[in-house]
Amino acid sequence: MKLSAQSRGMFPIAPTPFLDDGRIDFDSIDRLVDFYVGCGCAGMTVLGVLGEAPKLDAAEAREVAARFIRRAPSLPVVVGVSSPGFAAMRALARMAMDAGAAGVMIAPPHTLRTDDQIVGYYTQAVQAIGEDVPFCIQDYPLNTSVVMAPGVIRRIVADNPSCVMLKHEDWPGLEKISRLRAWESAKEMRHVSILCGNNGLFLDFEPERGADGAMTGYPFPDMLVEMLGLAAAGRRDEAHDLFDAHLPMLRYEQQPGIGLAARKRVLQRRGLIATAAMRAPFAPLSATATEEVDYLLARIGRVDARARL
Amino acid sequence: MKLSAQSRGMFPIAPTPFLDDGRIDFDSIDRLVDFYVGCGCAGMTVLGVLGEAPKLDAAEAREVAARFIRRAPSLPVVVGVSSPGFAAMRALARMAMDAGAAGVMIAPPHTLRTDDQIVGYYTQAVQAIGEDVPFCIQDYPLNTSVVMAPGVIRRIVADNPSCVMLKHEDWPGLEKISRLRAWESAKEMRHVSILCGNNGLFLDFEPERGADGAMTGYPFPDMLVEMLGLAAAGRRDEAHDLFDAHLPMLRYEQQPGIGLAARKRVLQRRGLIATAAMRAPFAPLSATATEEVDYLLARIGRVDARARL
Amino acid sequence: MKLSAQSRGMFPIAPTPFLDDGRIDFDSIDRLVDFYVGCGCAGMTVLGVLGEAPKLDAAEAREVAARFIRRAPSLPVVVGVSSPGFAAMRALARMAMDAGAAGVMIAPPHTLRTDDQIVGYYTQAVQAIGEDVPFCIQDYPLNTSVVMAPGVIRRIVADNPSCVMLKHEDWPGLEKISRLRAWESAKEMRHVSILCGNNGLFLDFEPERGADGAMTGYPFPDMLVEMLGLAAAGRRDEAHDLFDAHLPMLRYEQQPGIGLAARKRVLQRRGLIATAAMRAPFAPLSATATEEVDYLLARIGRVDARARL
Amino acid sequence: MKLSAQSRGMFPIAPTPFLDDGRIDFDSIDRLVDFYVGCGCAGMTVLGVLGEAPKLDAAEAREVAARFIRRAPSLPVVVGVSSPGFAAMRALARMAMDAGAAGVMIAPPHTLRTDDQIVGYYTQAVQAIGEDVPFCIQDYPLNTSVVMAPGVIRRIVADNPSCVMLKHEDWPGLEKISRLRAWESAKEMRHVSILCGNNGLFLDFEPERGADGAMTGYPFPDMLVEMLGLAAAGRRDEAHDLFDAHLPMLRYEQQPGIGLAARKRVLQRRGLIATAAMRAPFAPLSATATEEVDYLLARIGRVDARARL
Repeated sequence: MKLSAQSRGMFPIAPTPFLDDGRIDFDSIDRLVDFYVGCGCAGMTVLGVLGEAPKLDAAEAREVAARFIRRAPSLPVVVGVSSPGFAAMRALARMAMDAGAAGVMIAPPHTLRTDDQIVGYYTQAVQAIGEDVPFCIQDYPLNTSVVMAPGVIRRIVADNPSCVMLKHEDWPGLEKISRLRAWESAKEMRHVSILCGNNGLFLDFEPERGADGAMTGYPFPDMLVEMLGLAAAGRRDEAHDLFDAHLPMLRYEQQPGIGLAARKRVLQRRGLIATAAMRAPFAPLSATATEEVDYLLARIGRVDARARL
Repeated sequence: MKLSAQSRGMFPIAPTPFLDDGRIDFDSIDRLVDFYVGCGCAGMTVLGVLGEAPKLDAAEAREVAARFIRRAPSLPVVVGVSSPGFAAMRALARMAMDAGAAGVMIAPPHTLRTDDQIVGYYTQAVQAIGEDVPFCIQDYPLNTSVVMAPGVIRRIVADNPSCVMLKHEDWPGLEKISRLRAWESAKEMRHVSILCGNNGLFLDFEPERGADGAMTGYPFPDMLVEMLGLAAAGRRDEAHDLFDAHLPMLRYEQQPGIGLAARKRVLQRRGLIATAAMRAPFAPLSATATEEVDYLLARIGRVDARARL
Repeated sequence: MKLSAQSRGMFPIAPTPFLDDGRIDFDSIDRLVDFYVGCGCAGMTVLGVLGEAPKLDAAEAREVAARFIRRAPSLPVVVGVSSPGFAAMRALARMAMDAGAAGVMIAPPHTLRTDDQIVGYYTQAVQAIGEDVPFCIQDYPLNTSVVMAPGVIRRIVADNPSCVMLKHEDWPGLEKISRLRAWESAKEMRHVSILCGNNGLFLDFEPERGADGAMTGYPFPDMLVEMLGLAAAGRRDEAHDLFDAHLPMLRYEQQPGIGLAARKRVLQRRGLIATAAMRAPFAPLSATATEEVDYLLARIGRVDARARL
Repeated sequence: MKLSAQSRGMFPIAPTPFLDDGRIDFDSIDRLVDFYVGCGCAGMTVLGVLGEAPKLDAAEAREVAARFIRRAPSLPVVVGVSSPGFAAMRALARMAMDAGAAGVMIAPPHTLRTDDQIVGYYTQAVQAIGEDVPFCIQDYPLNTSVVMAPGVIRRIVADNPSCVMLKHEDWPGLEKISRLRAWESAKEMRHVSILCGNNGLFLDFEPERGADGAMTGYPFPDMLVEMLGLAAAGRRDEAHDLFDAHLPMLRYEQQPGIGLAARKRVLQRRGLIATAAMRAPFAPLSATATEEVDYLLARIGRVDARARL
């Protein structure tokens, strides 16, 4: 199943589970996927930064991607292929598509500045990976230092038929969604799927602005599935109530570095991965931070049974 | 009253109120100050970016600072003096201290990189403003691109007796507070006041880590005064409950650009400033964003009477 | 005399001479101006970074600008007014124009990224300084981190009739000059003066590409006047021979920080300023660097009598 | 032969030659290596940015490195292994050492800021590649945005016995060489080889400051071998005369993007590679730029027979 402009819903960004000795924990991959499928996720994303992809060698990356894909034949899997060079990007994209991926995600390199440079980069990327590979633009200026004006995204979409999705994590970004959807309404831009990241910090308002779903690694994707459903059903207050109960944790996990450690801890406490092990180099949770995460979990548990662990 | 290493509590960052024709609204300055004093703030900060300082000419800046200071003789006022050159910094600092300020705040220019460059910059700044002017380090990498290791802060504190305060807004930053306080406990660093900014997004945990208070422009400083009091009294759950009720708005106002517009709107709705007018250039709130702010206000109002407007 | 799109020739960037006790050396200002006039310069630029403007307070800046202007009633003087805020920019621009300046120069702040942001910034700047003040765009990405595509410059020129000059110091930049001049030939852009900076490192080729002159602080503006004349006369080899004789020094003085110290030393040895004093903070020339500068001077002196000191 | 702290002399950065159809031109690799050996180079560096490494897939990279190494069994070959993740760095380093490389070169990622972050990164890199792999620090802030204080380099050298070389391309950088060598003289730092890059723009002075040689892709390495020899023999004026004759071209080729195109053109005109072909994406030389390169070549040819082509 290929990624398309009609994709919508919750795409969790999957972590890569490790055993305590550093080997890949394939059983936990299966458990994660089963959980994603069971709770109504619409797809998933693997080999992102959250997935510790830079710590996997090429063979491991292929095995991890293949395992996720094989376990979820019904779910589209997006594979991150951002690379410093187009040869590596092409190799990754081919590997991913051969393994059965639904599409790939590409972030721009931090050196791009002008509108033309950004548009030109995506043209070159499509030449590298092939026009038959559906791709998602990752628009994450806090991480990449690259700022894409709405008009730049429109140009990339217009120039490249294989561009089917925007991972929206600009900041601030609500008005950007509104602008893109306004162009779409005015027939000045074709429709692409917009899934929101940025650690989910504005997911209460983003669907109201026109987003089609979420793509984030927050360890309660089941809550986000429910929340998106409430929003889609027009039950605004309930959607916000559920979101607000989790916001203290969403906010906590937004912290670079320790965010991943916090997420692995929560996934472990939920029984979804066997251990919270990470590969070096990583920022461990201090004892105080661990207590803080557990305290936040307990507080969420007062209103959301999913967090009673 | 001079700023000191013992300063603690809530220091709101004051906006500069304007009339609809662009002139400074001095009556609203008085109203703001009276409110700050009345709700238990311990000090305040003026002429920061939030205060639209770059849109004031030198004479206006002097008048604004003087009005804030004169209205609150009992409160220490911190004046932002960050400048591209030391001559302008010296002129601003002298103006501020002559007007009765308690101290000044200095952020590093975005070009600094190495530890030695940062430490050297503060040495030069102190030479420019004079050793008798108490100052606060502004540590805000998201805004300045300058990352200060904890050891760099310790060196600045050790080198400059007039350094009495850290405005902590590193991100992530909880471990940094813990580190500085651990050095202090081990007698490896003298005590300085740590007030936390970063739009207040981690104020629920920062006092637990050793922070002495907050310095932020969130338009409910009265709530933060209460929250800090609960935290100081060891009433942890109540402190978090109050904080969490406001977190959706704290998060919303963290957005660069429209955050200021949102804050002025809330202050206006609270009756603290006459209008939400800003001077050009500014990012206005769209109709949708205005509705979002009002919706968030209404939601806070369900649990905090201060937000029932 | 106002700056215009027909301005051409050599515009030295003037240093601010100091006495050894730190006071401004007005006599040396007069001597510098007389020299600039005498050797055929077409204008000059004051209060730039090279002019140590950030170390002058407002009154001093006014006096320095006024002295340069008064001494050279026949030469257009450009004043740098780049500022972190529009209020300060407006104040500087008014001061400069009141003192008799021919126009102002504006560099974009380092935070701008997208094409629209840059174009919008210049629109706001013109609103701040007034449409009657001729201005020069400073396009110096190595210093500002802001990259202006040729199309962005064309938009700024089209939007603002008061934009009459481009200080070109993009890097690499030769093709950019060719592109702008090609648009001009095709009637797709109106003519503006292009003066080249970037420490003069490509001044041998820039006039051939369509530049109208130079704006740089190299301490042999008389050589550059002659070189531009040779280029204009089609005496290509002679122009390059003269340029190449100075290139080792041009290259040496391109170094940030010590470049200014090197230039003040050369100007002092030429008898144009009384001392090489700088105001703090500054990077002094080490003994080895001083020897290197003198060695380069001696080597230039073998082919250019101006350097025999 | 392993890279060592005693390595000195000229290490050209080798381009990767392509045929017009995009395949790797192995015959030209042999010709390049024979030329490097014949003119007295002391080593070489492959798979750098100049070598278009990001455009090679893993198998190609291995073949290119192996071909260079096999053809020059007497010369130490340094392989660039900078990567966004440690798994890829380890894989590249192993591949290189298995193929017979003498050592590897590592640049820091652009996200590093504080002294401790930089030092910690090199510790992690050594853990990734193994303590038995000699490595060279690449210190190139203009390219990486990472500024390493001299003390940071000293710490990396002290912490990692396998650090044997510094590729010095800080800017400005002359005083940095002097500082490192002064520490060495004072027995406060062990000796490492310092080879200078930064497009060779200060190679006239760098050996005088204590550098051991050059590592740059300038297409006249034979000239640099001679120049370094003259400098070593104390024939200062002759060394500078030779350098100055080439400085206009060194300067021209310093331009990012088109610098590589210019170099390939010169290498082709020298008969060292069959064609100047590059792989996409690349910045081609315009007709005007081609004429400029040829003009500069002709001018060098007046004093250096090597450039008479």
